[in-house]
Amino acid sequence: MNKYSEKIAILTGDPNGIGAEITIKALNLLNLPPKNFVIISNRKILNTYGILNDKYEVIEVDYSHKVDPGVVSAEAGDFAFRALEKACEIRPKFIVTAPTSKEAMHLAGHQYNGQTEVLEHFLAHNGQKAEMLFAARDFRVLLLTRHCAVKEINFTKEMIIEKVERLRWYFQNKLMVKRPSFALCGLNPHAGENGIIGKEEEEILIPAVESLRKRGINITNPMPADALFIKGVRNYLDGEKSPYDCYIACYHDQGLIPIKAAASEKTVNMTIGLDIVRTSPSHGTAFDIAGKNLANPDSMIEAIKACLY
Amino acid sequence: MNKYSEKIAILTGDPNGIGAEITIKALNLLNLPPKNFVIISNRKILNTYGILNDKYEVIEVDYSHKVDPGVVSAEAGDFAFRALEKACEIRPKFIVTAPTSKEAMHLAGHQYNGQTEVLEHFLAHNGQKAEMLFAARDFRVLLLTRHCAVKEINFTKEMIIEKVERLRWYFQNKLMVKRPSFALCGLNPHAGENGIIGKEEEEILIPAVESLRKRGINITNPMPADALFIKGVRNYLDGEKSPYDCYIACYHDQGLIPIKAAASEKTVNMTIGLDIVRTSPSHGTAFDIAGKNLANPDSMIEAIKACLY
Repeated sequence: MNKYSEKIAILTGDPNGIGAEITIKALNLLNLPPKNFVIISNRKILNTYGILNDKYEVIEVDYSHKVDPGVVSAEAGDFAFRALEKACEIRPKFIVTAPTSKEAMHLAGHQYNGQTEVLEHFLAHNGQKAEMLFAARDFRVLLLTRHCAVKEINFTKEMIIEKVERLRWYFQNKLMVKRPSFALCGLNPHAGENGIIGKEEEEILIPAVESLRKRGINITNPMPADALFIKGVRNYLDGEKSPYDCYIACYHDQGLIPIKAAASEKTVNMTIGLDIVRTSPSHGTAFDIAGKNLANPDSMIEAIKACLY
Repeated sequence: MNKYSEKIAILTGDPNGIGAEITIKALNLLNLPPKNFVIISNRKILNTYGILNDKYEVIEVDYSHKVDPGVVSAEAGDFAFRALEKACEIRPKFIVTAPTSKEAMHLAGHQYNGQTEVLEHFLAHNGQKAEMLFAARDFRVLLLTRHCAVKEINFTKEMIIEKVERLRWYFQNKLMVKRPSFALCGLNPHAGENGIIGKEEEEILIPAVESLRKRGINITNPMPADALFIKGVRNYLDGEKSPYDCYIACYHDQGLIPIKAAASEKTVNMTIGLDIVRTSPSHGTAFDIAGKNLANPDSMIEAIKACLY
């Protein structure tokens, strides 16, 4: 327990991107109690892009360089990295990250694939691992595999058990859902049709489900993904409750196609499994429109709202 | 050109399933000119399940056996098979097939995986092959691979060229669309991100696209499937025109997840690539409710309507 442990920290990302602009716009539009937030950024950067209500606490991260909208620079990449470091240090409940530039971070010598990996570096201990969850309101999808080629999709029973255990931990400890319900997609068409179309359901997924149930987890058998997502998408669009607390997809497109079909730019990317939950909008730094007051804060708004459900 | 070459033939499928019931209900509800149709069935079977307007021409297929709702029998399977044979013989423009039972057909000694394979058997000549297309109004998805395990997804440049050529033939000759537009999904997440996530886009899909364009086909580069389908789904739900005449998915779930998310039971299964186009509802024989006047004709209505677009 510390001063920030119930707060949502917002990071403005790359100083030369649209991050500060969408942060300010999102907070102004949402108009939530400032005391629930802490902004990890720099007044000079914030002031370049808008006017933030001065009731928000801002933790200053040094930035002596010029704010230069649209420019990829090592200094900007380093700032984004140090803001992440600071966020991990103060241990808030949630971190909302505006977009950073992988290229700028690499120029600064921080060789990470993205913010997820930086967070994993600072936070991973006690076997914690980052999981990739997508959410649109209460329609949520966990990916069992991330950015891998279809030919390289690979998982074991043990890997699934670990990932679903981390998912349960997230629901119980961060969303306060005691017994979340999970729906599992089969890997193959028709969920393998009893082993006729692929063996992973019978050899890996069903044994994993059996073990998970013994651990008290409420999870379906592997289901044909095309039929399974119909009601999730429909309920999202109709403003109704999702039939499951989370869907578990075997691979990227299987999970992303339905949630983006339902929510498109309102889909939020989340990193769970670490002490701090991180959410982020689903777009990039948009250097081409930075500093022009043209950025749309919708996805940032959803990223902040995802911390409230 | 023959008497039936502009007509839609409707087959009532397994005599003991819901096929005749949904056929009669669908025709009564649609109330289209009977002269556009020919029903390939048997009066005894039709009369068991409802009252068909006697303006419809019925081509009788022998059925001396008792109509026995809910029962799987060799006689019923043989009837369904002979109706398909008759349909191929009269060469209509479209065949709409109510559901049959694979088990009943096998009992009768007809060892086919489904009606698609029976049609392929009777109609395939001059190198014609059956392609699996799903349609909901003008939102259409062609599958490059059908019911195969994810680990066994496999295609070559030549195979894709042939399939897309058959798709163009279908649009030009059956739907009278001179220059249809096709959108191609990448196989891998983010369409492979320039070879970082899988090589199939660069080694197979892009070369296929280049050859297809030389043949005058209007087709996109391989695109990230999760982003690509957003507008297709959205337009379908909003009653607007699809952005493309057809999407081409690399595998079953990639294509079926978005179209079922949009249209669920209104998704129609189509067989194209043969002289006669076949459509069918997306459900089975529903033996459990056969003969009880409980069957919902919506999917059959869509299967008939798919012949009209």
